[in-house]
Order: sequence, then structure tokens, then C-alpha cells
Amino acid sequence: MSDGSAAAGTVVHVPLGERAYDIHIGPGALAQAGEILKPFAPQGRVAVVADRTVADLHLGALEETLGAAGIRAQTILVPSGESSKSMRILEQVLGALLDLRLERSETVIAFGGGVAGDLAGFAAAILRRGVRCVQIPTTLLSQVDSSVGGKTGINAPQGKNLIGAFHQPASVIADVSLLDSLPERELRSGYAEVVKYGLLGDAAFFEWLEANGAALLAGDAAARTEAIAVSCRAKARIVVEDETEAGNRALLNLGHTFGHALEAATGYSERLLHGEGVAIGMALAFETSRRMGLCAGQDAERAAAHLRACDLKTRLADIPGDLPSAEGLIELMAQDKKASGGKLTFILVRAIGQAFKTQEVDLDVVRAVLSDELTAKDAAA
Amino acid sequence: MSDGSAAAGTVVHVPLGERAYDIHIGPGALAQAGEILKPFAPQGRVAVVADRTVADLHLGALEETLGAAGIRAQTILVPSGESSKSMRILEQVLGALLDLRLERSETVIAFGGGVAGDLAGFAAAILRRGVRCVQIPTTLLSQVDSSVGGKTGINAPQGKNLIGAFHQPASVIADVSLLDSLPERELRSGYAEVVKYGLLGDAAFFEWLEANGAALLAGDAAARTEAIAVSCRAKARIVVEDETEAGNRALLNLGHTFGHALEAATGYSERLLHGEGVAIGMALAFETSRRMGLCAGQDAERAAAHLRACDLKTRLADIPGDLPSAEGLIELMAQDKKASGGKLTFILVRAIGQAFKTQEVDLDVVRAVLSDELTAKDAAA
Repeated sequence: MSDGSAAAGTVVHVPLGERAYDIHIGPGALAQAGEILKPFAPQGRVAVVADRTVADLHLGALEETLGAAGIRAQTILVPSGESSKSMRILEQVLGALLDLRLERSETVIAFGGGVAGDLAGFAAAILRRGVRCVQIPTTLLSQVDSSVGGKTGINAPQGKNLIGAFHQPASVIADVSLLDSLPERELRSGYAEVVKYGLLGDAAFFEWLEANGAALLAGDAAARTEAIAVSCRAKARIVVEDETEAGNRALLNLGHTFGHALEAATGYSERLLHGEGVAIGMALAFETSRRMGLCAGQDAERAAAHLRACDLKTRLADIPGDLPSAEGLIELMAQDKKASGGKLTFILVRAIGQAFKTQEVDLDVVRAVLSDELTAKDAAA
Repeated sequence: MSDGSAAAGTVVHVPLGERAYDIHIGPGALAQAGEILKPFAPQGRVAVVADRTVADLHLGALEETLGAAGIRAQTILVPSGESSKSMRILEQVLGALLDLRLERSETVIAFGGGVAGDLAGFAAAILRRGVRCVQIPTTLLSQVDSSVGGKTGINAPQGKNLIGAFHQPASVIADVSLLDSLPERELRSGYAEVVKYGLLGDAAFFEWLEANGAALLAGDAAARTEAIAVSCRAKARIVVEDETEAGNRALLNLGHTFGHALEAATGYSERLLHGEGVAIGMALAFETSRRMGLCAGQDAERAAAHLRACDLKTRLADIPGDLPSAEGLIELMAQDKKASGGKLTFILVRAIGQAFKTQEVDLDVVRAVLSDELTAKDAAA
């Protein structure tokens, strides 16, 4: 790379033995795609499963770097939005990949946000019992969250992500320049997942975010690169210890037990984006921990303050429209796919940077936290 | 087990590290299902995905052993036959499993032949990104062939087994008594896969089969147990070396390159069962090897003679109805999913028990073998 852009980038290695791979992060990282894909395109072509909106904006740039490396892109477009994570679209993508006669030695590129990554990654996982997948995430959420861990899948009528596979990518290319075309609200929503890594295990990183979060959100490429790299490294450490989610990986769900229930309650709609639900969920996890005497009140306040400073939601009152009762929300939490033996698992905190997993939570405390929040929401309405 | 039946059985261990498991083989092995499943049924129930025909014959016996261990069977019936390996039936099975709220710590039992094993195994592989599967194969083919290797999957309009996953079972129960209810032709078809293990790597086992094959086919439980155990051990050795099919595992395809082409040419119909195609394919692989000067004529003759002695097909003339030309059959071989860089891979032999993989085959020889066979078929017609 002679244009200097790669010099501003960084590489995070995910050491998963035979399944080890690199995450290339930085402004202009997309331009490296041709070089990175070369060993993965034995027939001089790759299949690209691309989000239609992302393709309109960035497919030309991807084709350019691939073309320069002598690789032809054969593109399969999928509609933007969560509804593409369906059995119907999966079947269409698999059919298109089979029509291309894509062989086991070849590669599928997932080009888009979390939906494209989950869908294309899953198609690659089950095509001919597994072909290589290279992820090129184009949202902050997917650059941080989907780059590591190998979770792929689709939704079922019974719930989200209920059908899928663990399929580690062969490589990830996270070009922070692509975030410039991301809608503001989606960017902030993705930022909640960045904050999560500070809150769950790295107080110093949280402090860094308090200082640099505004610049990151305003477009500072160096801050974005740094924050994504730190987040990916943190996630990689956890995933490497627990590739198939038996133990500590649960910490990554900080804010997600509450968050998923709120997403379900709002119909996975524009009323509440995933990261927004996680932000509220993290604030509620801190508040629950505070009331249980696990965590100091000033830590709970500091966590919420930074989220609010970044224009993220932290209260149920921040969600437009009606919500279920406290009991209804608890019922939604119990439907999470990681429920075990009917017991609810919570990720709580002892301080900023000190999350832990527990099944010993007094549901009366949770109910009280939610009731107070709902009362405050009613008062505000 | 106090009824003595287990004493006549045997256990083959498949040492795949974290994914290691046991194959319980013998007459009456089904009666052990309750004991075996106990640690895998934390909520006192299992989901059983069962072939409808097999369920009619043997579900009662399965429910009895599970019930004795305090395990409730929640059964999902699927139609018998290859057409159940479809995206539509897969979606139905997944939906039913999700409606049961089957959790990650629970277990799916695949109860039936290869179709049920492939379908239920794949559903288990992708349900919540992977739940445990216990295979209870009920045909000779599936007891020998699907018990080891973890291959699961469904068919696509473009070809067989094109969508799937590697998902090792948690345990396999191969009750040879169940084979008593198997149609004669299916039993013989499955026996071809047993012979394969002798021909590909174990001349002594082939000799044993020459002496004991007739008794095995006639119903001798000890011979069946021995043959299945030897076959599973042989397959396990190969699979352990090559879990995801990069190298030596290809030897298991002895007879399959020709066989798959013949199955495709006959529309995967009653005209030619899978094992029958493999039997003809093995005879053709020996004949091709003989003509290439790789293998002695007497070995080729001896291999075919045993297959014929067991009433298996060995010639294209044994297939009823019309077949494509030699060129047409070669074209069908090239569509196999394991084609690599457009090159055809053949498994050829240097002698009985000495198979090897090669991409250096003179297609003129293959064409001549097929042409001569087709000429003989025309003459016989």
C-alpha cells in the first residue's frame, strides 16, 4: 500500500488455531481487498453477497480493488434490512451461489452491515458444508461486533438468530471511511457496542472513550480505527477462550438481556435500534447492580452519563410509544435463546470495567427497576 | 444391561478430541438408548426426528427404553425417502424443534436411515447454532456410513448434499436387530459400503467378507456386528486424520465418482439404489485401474466376483433402462461437488485393500471402460 492510508490502519489477529484470521482496520482498508483476496480466489473470481444500499454506494470501489488483483466479482444483491435474514432469502442466496458453481476452494464476500454479514456468513457456512467467507462490514456495529466470533445466522418466526452456525471468517476488512456514508443514528447505535467493551472489562478504554467518543462520532478516522481495534481485540480475547459460547463469552451480552426484551417489545422496528436497546440495557444493568449493592452509584451514573453525552438512549422514557409492563418485559427476557433450564442469565457489574455473569438475580429488584423506569416514562408522557 | 444382549455388542470409540463419541453396535443396542441419553436430556425429554416408516416399526421400542430412563420423547415425523432432504422439510423440522423450545443443552435424536440422519443431523447443526444430536441409524448403509464422519445436509435443485454441515453426533446407536425389518434389496445395497472398506484399505477384512458375507446378509447378528464395527473403525481412522475432508478422506469415495454419475443418470430412483451404484462404481474403478496397468486383473475379477456373489450389480448391463453415452456419464462425474479446479478426482486401486486418490487419469481409458460396458449392455438388451 503506497498511498499512505494503510499506514494509518492496524491489524488485529484473532488466534483461533486453524481458524485464525486477521482483521484489517483503517481508513482505506477496502483498497487492500484485492491483495487480501488473492490467495482465496483460485479461479480468479469471488462471489459477493451485498446489501443493495451498500452496493449502490461502495460496490464500485470493491470491484476496483478486486479487479486490480485480477479477481472478478460475481455479485448477489440482497435487500437491506432485517427481513433479509429469512429462510426464503437464504435459499435464494444459496441457489445463486450454486448456480455460480462456487467450489469449496473459493470464497464468499459478505459486503454490508450485520444483516449481510450474518446471512452471507451462514450461506457460506452451509454451502457444500462450508466455503470460505471474507467479511467486509460497512457499519460501526458490524465492524465492532460481527468481525469477531464467527456467529452467523438467520431469524425464525419464533425469534431472532435462532438458526445459524459458528463460521469464522478467513479475513475481515473494516474500512472506517465507509462509516462516513452511514446515517448518524446508526453510527451512534453502533457506538453503544464500543462503549460496551469499556464497561464490561476495560475501565481505561472507557475513560479513553469519555475523552475521544465525540471526535470518533464526528468522523475522526484515527479515533475510529483505535476504538474498533480495541473492541475487536477485547472480543477476540473472550472468544478465543470460549469459541462456542459455553462460558465467559456471555459477558459480551452486557446490556443485551434487557436490550433484546426491549427490541422484542418494540417489534425490532425503527422505534429502537439494536445499539440503542443495548445502551438502555447497559444503563439498566448498572442500575440493577447498584440496587443489589454490587456496584457504586457513581459508576452507574458515570456509565449512563457518557451514553447520554453521545446522544444515546439510557431510559425507558427515551423510547417512543407504549411498552409492556415490568412483568411483560421480564417474560420477554425469559424467551432469550440463551435461557438455560428456564433460568434467566444476567450480566451485572461490580464497577466500570468489571462485568460478571450470574443466574442469582433477585427478580424483585429487576421488577422494581423496570417499574420505576415505566413510572418515570408515564410521568414524562 | 442384564439381558445379555449388550454382551454380544461392541463399542467403537471415535477419538475426535472435544467432539469424541462412541458408536454402540450390536443386537439390542436400542435398549441402551435410555441409559445413553440420560446425561443428554437435562429437562427429561428429547426431540426425536423420525422417518415415518421406521417410526411405525420401531418408535415404540425407542420410547420404551427412553421412558424407563425417565425421558419423554417428543417426536417429529418426516416422510420416508430422499425428497425429505429438502429446504421445505428442513424448515418444517426446525420450526417444530423451535416450537418445542428445545434449548442448547438438549438433544435431537435422528431415527431412521440416511435421509433422517442427514436431515435431523443438519437441523441439529443449525438450530441455535448447534444442539447435540444422537444418531440411531436403522439401515445397514447408515449404520456403516453415516455413523462416522459427521456429514449432514440436504439436497438442492442443483444436486445432492450441496447444503449441509459437519456436525459430529454425541453418540451413535447401531442396533443390528433393526436390520431384520429392512427390505432385502436395501440390505444388499448397504452391504456394498461394507465391502468398500475391505477394498479400499483392508484386504484381510475383504477376505473375511468373502467367507462371512452370506451369513451376514442372511441375518447373522454376530457377523453384522463385526462387519459394522470394522467398517466404522476404518472410517473413524480416516475421518480423525481428516475431519473436514481436505485429504485422505477422499478414499471413502471409492466407487462413488462412477456411482454418483450413475445415480444422477437414473434420476436417483428405484432403478439404482445408492449402494448398487457404489458396487458398480467399485467394479468400474478396479477395471479402470486394471486397464491403466495399476492393478492385476485377478484382483479386479475377485472384487467383482464377491459383489456378484452377494447379488449386487457390477455392470452397466445390470441397470434397467437406458443410460447416457460414455461422454454423458463423464460429464455427470464432472458435476460432483468435490470437483476441484475443474479437474476430476478418481479413487483408483493398486490391489484389493490399496486404494489411492488421483487427478491424473487418462479420460480416454475411462471413456473406453464405459463404452465397452454400454456396448455389452446393448448386446444384452
